Amino acid sequence: MKLAKEKPKFVNGVNVDALFDTIDAIKDSPVIAEFQFRANNKWVNGGHNHTTIKEFYGAQEVHPHENPFELDADEPPLLLGEDLGPNPVEYALKAVAACVTTSIVYHAAAKGIEVRGVESRLEGDLDLRGFLGISKEVPVGYKNIRLYFKIDADISDEEKEELIRMGEHYSPVFNTISNATPVISQLDK
Amino acid sequence: MKLAKEKPKFVNGVNVDALFDTIDAIKDSPVIAEFQFRANNKWVNGGHNHTTIKEFYGAQEVHPHENPFELDADEPPLLLGEDLGPNPVEYALKAVAACVTTSIVYHAAAKGIEVRGVESRLEGDLDLRGFLGISKEVPVGYKNIRLYFKIDADISDEEKEELIRMGEHYSPVFNTISNATPVISQLDK
Repeated sequence: MKLAKEKPKFVNGVNVDALFDTIDAIKDSPVIAEFQFRANNKWVNGGHNHTTIKEFYGAQEVHPHENPFELDADEPPLLLGEDLGPNPVEYALKAVAACVTTSIVYHAAAKGIEVRGVESRLEGDLDLRGFLGISKEVPVGYKNIRLYFKIDADISDEEKEELIRMGEHYSPVFNTISNATPVISQLDK
Repeated sequence: MKLAKEKPKFVNGVNVDALFDTIDAIKDSPVIAEFQFRANNKWVNGGHNHTTIKEFYGAQEVHPHENPFELDADEPPLLLGEDLGPNPVEYALKAVAACVTTSIVYHAAAKGIEVRGVESRLEGDLDLRGFLGISKEVPVGYKNIRLYFKIDADISDEEKEELIRMGEHYSPVFNTISNATPVISQLDK
């Protein structure tokens, strides 16, 4: 006797049952969807600074990372640093790549679409005249960021394009960057 | 005989002479200010993916990093990952912190303002109902990002506030996020 195929618990390494349980829990109690991510940064020297990420707040609790994450940023010699880590705009590319990728993988999993591979290459155009205060005509930030995705899955190119659109649509970092997001900084006396 | 004090070559660990030489060179030939930053990302499993940053383009040449930077991103268990690295929105905070800090330090150096320390703590508010597709009313990205700076320098609080405003003004990541920046993704067939 052949048993009816049960819905797999994991798709793309994502626990889909837990994902739907989370969605149901948030529908019942939206307050648990309010997250606050946190970081502490310390300047070292020149273009070198160090960030520690030790906890975040979500589901009405503070969650420590088991091991705090320690990240160095620096500038390459051409930009007067010692190349002791990616520079801030490279970290921004990292954030975009990781976020759209995770968004593709999780939302594909929720739809039962199995993917074997997702690779991307990113390019971000930046005119240094903005940072250096040489021209007010050019944007200080990235003029634009481009992602080129290769997706390995048994679906058509059209369906892969749909996955990418879905990935963008639900990606927090994609939306943080492609919309104007308020960044407020102040002196902590 | 007391010699006139010469302009120090380094301020805040930044080679100020080289900084002004760069500015002059770009004024003469703006094309060298056109940079392109690059990254390659590969999904591993679930919320885990890996980025390699091996080179960038600037001053009309490709510059390899001496050692490529390798960065892992993952989600914490509460978000169905294994916490093998900061998550994408934590990387975004890292990018903001590092960029505004470097912008403060470099521009202070250019003005001859010595700083002994720059520390910041960051908070970013994110409502998970956006990512999960539960509500169209909430932003998918960060609602806002806050940075609180402590600056150790022999200047008044008002001057420290001015340094922070200058840091924001010239920071590429701050401007990428606080303005709407086009992010274009497509299938690389």
